[in-house]
Amino acid sequence: MLPAQKIKAGSVGSVETRYLDLPEPVRLDCGRDLHPVRVAYETYGTLSPARDNVILVCHALSGDAHAAGIAKTPPAESTRDGFGAQDRDGTTAKGLGWWDGMIGPGKAFDTDRFFVVATNLLGGCRGTTGPSSPDPATGRPYGSDFPVVTVADMVRTERAFLDALGIERLAAVAGGSLGGMQALEWAVLFPDQVDSVVVIASTHALAPQGVAWNAIAREAIMRDPDWQGGHYYGTGRAPDAGMGVARMVGHITYLSAPALDEKFSRRLQFADDIRFTIAEPEFEVENYLRHQAASFVKRFDANTYLYTSRALSYFDLAREHGGGSLERALDGVMARTLLIAFSSDWLYPPAAHEEIEVALRNLGKPVEYHLIDAPYGHDCFLLEEARQTPVIRRFLASTPE
Amino acid sequence: MLPAQKIKAGSVGSVETRYLDLPEPVRLDCGRDLHPVRVAYETYGTLSPARDNVILVCHALSGDAHAAGIAKTPPAESTRDGFGAQDRDGTTAKGLGWWDGMIGPGKAFDTDRFFVVATNLLGGCRGTTGPSSPDPATGRPYGSDFPVVTVADMVRTERAFLDALGIERLAAVAGGSLGGMQALEWAVLFPDQVDSVVVIASTHALAPQGVAWNAIAREAIMRDPDWQGGHYYGTGRAPDAGMGVARMVGHITYLSAPALDEKFSRRLQFADDIRFTIAEPEFEVENYLRHQAASFVKRFDANTYLYTSRALSYFDLAREHGGGSLERALDGVMARTLLIAFSSDWLYPPAAHEEIEVALRNLGKPVEYHLIDAPYGHDCFLLEEARQTPVIRRFLASTPE
Repeated sequence: MLPAQKIKAGSVGSVETRYLDLPEPVRLDCGRDLHPVRVAYETYGTLSPARDNVILVCHALSGDAHAAGIAKTPPAESTRDGFGAQDRDGTTAKGLGWWDGMIGPGKAFDTDRFFVVATNLLGGCRGTTGPSSPDPATGRPYGSDFPVVTVADMVRTERAFLDALGIERLAAVAGGSLGGMQALEWAVLFPDQVDSVVVIASTHALAPQGVAWNAIAREAIMRDPDWQGGHYYGTGRAPDAGMGVARMVGHITYLSAPALDEKFSRRLQFADDIRFTIAEPEFEVENYLRHQAASFVKRFDANTYLYTSRALSYFDLAREHGGGSLERALDGVMARTLLIAFSSDWLYPPAAHEEIEVALRNLGKPVEYHLIDAPYGHDCFLLEEARQTPVIRRFLASTPE
Repeated sequence: MLPAQKIKAGSVGSVETRYLDLPEPVRLDCGRDLHPVRVAYETYGTLSPARDNVILVCHALSGDAHAAGIAKTPPAESTRDGFGAQDRDGTTAKGLGWWDGMIGPGKAFDTDRFFVVATNLLGGCRGTTGPSSPDPATGRPYGSDFPVVTVADMVRTERAFLDALGIERLAAVAGGSLGGMQALEWAVLFPDQVDSVVVIASTHALAPQGVAWNAIAREAIMRDPDWQGGHYYGTGRAPDAGMGVARMVGHITYLSAPALDEKFSRRLQFADDIRFTIAEPEFEVENYLRHQAASFVKRFDANTYLYTSRALSYFDLAREHGGGSLERALDGVMARTLLIAFSSDWLYPPAAHEEIEVALRNLGKPVEYHLIDAPYGHDCFLLEEARQTPVIRRFLASTPE
């Protein structure tokens, strides 16, 4: 599991995504059994003989199993544009994992000590079974016949995957955004199998504004005639236009207004005056959005976007597990919880983290909450590695090994 | 000009939009001359013999000339849905003007004293010449051959229209959002013809986040294949799908996150559990967005949306008139200025109003700035009538009549 070659200090080195077929069907919240289910995964570090040093890292909406190191087979399409880290929730063009700054020897998730496992989530398009996988009933890709999955379904799939790997307990489950939702769901669904959870820039239930942004992104995809009711595979057409708009919406919600000011101001692309054009981008921020949209559609599947966006909108610990009460939902949690929020994150704002903290504290559960004052919005969870690292390392240091 | 029939206390009564063809071409910023130009307008109150009591009211992105009173001919399609005031930037289903709460006897813009004039802006789709008007060169609608207009072009058209009405001076120019941009542009372009300007929930230049939201809305329209490069008139197809998405983006940016919390929370539409559906709206906020999109596309032209959105993104007083300096741009202003901002408006935030205030103050110009603490976001300029009214009445009371 150790890297064959040290690329640089702190890197897990060269890695390759592997695949595992689950032996049993996954029972889903919607009532359906899903089978077969393949899980794409990577591991970094060494599994201890006692198998008690495992950290599961869960990715966000558009991520994948390549969380750290350099991919032996870099992705065909560039996802890196030099503008910032907005594509780092997916493998970068240079083949660097999306959380490479956080996972490795001496890093936040220290592979000298921990065996870090990253999977592509259920419904994904980067190796794990999802809407683009073949439906055994027809032999053709599921498309919109893929069952509507929940965050709990993703977690049950991860549980089954770890079972197949012979891993029973987790020293920690960690993730940002949708990844943090999975971490929380783990602590609730499998309380006696999780020592600690690290929840970053996440929530117990997305606020209505976030629900709305996600709905708008999905509408943009589904209103694209090339979506074809979800059965676009093999037709030579895909809803790239709509998914581009969806990605643009995402990008602006991931950044703060001051970050956009600093990054783009109102700078025009050409010369120093306007060109009186409707169709062409004029401002640098307009060009940036088009560029982001164009690169994203090359690497990501629109149906996976729809399903994942739906799952994170549905996610609501209080509704799912507490009859409307967050405290009741968290009542069975046995893990220690670390919550990290960023002051400028308006999509996953600090308030929701505070609600989780208060609920856990009221229940007498061990919880730590850190609010990091940083300007980049939701993207901070990918950008502010240096400031998260000591907090996470200190928190994990007291985890029994 | 007085209402034929008093509908209720404070109403201007029953009104009908009228139309005026400008005698001369309008010279545009892009260099083209536009001719013919028709202007849709309404007036409320009585023009004084000295013609010195005129207030021009300018509308926002999706508005029209029907600012007050009850339309004699209500619009064919409903734009009112019972959820709120989000469609009040356009005529409501009941035929009530979009700023009826602000214009009338005893109201903020008091028609017992002032002669209030409202026009549909250049590029509009509600009676004033715009992309859906016939191009004299071809006899067919302009579509995307319509020249790209600026806020200054809108103001020059308003100037020419008032000339045709025999009105030289304005006691005030007032507007919210894009309407406020027009008011500022009036003060700069025609300094000796404007006594005062009332600028509400507006800016001297949209911040990059606002530029981005507008770009995304336009992308949604232009990526709809039914847009057909802007020449969809008469084809039986229009980019309704894309414009629906554009409108959804708009709605969420017009409201604050807390307003969405209060209005919708995470309430589900049906029963008290999820239905595992991708395509159908589940949350009330999702249903609201669909409803808003559906009603908007029935009353508004997509090309007008594109042109107007472009104009308000271009608008930049410092770039246009000050070589990059806002102070230099405002140097010639002779009008008194009233600025009103709302604490929760994140699309047109208070900061930009403060920049205008500081610039005018540094120049020794008379300026008043009011920050109203209100929770509804940008929509406040349509909703918070009661709190704006005394501020505006007091400000206008010192206007020479």
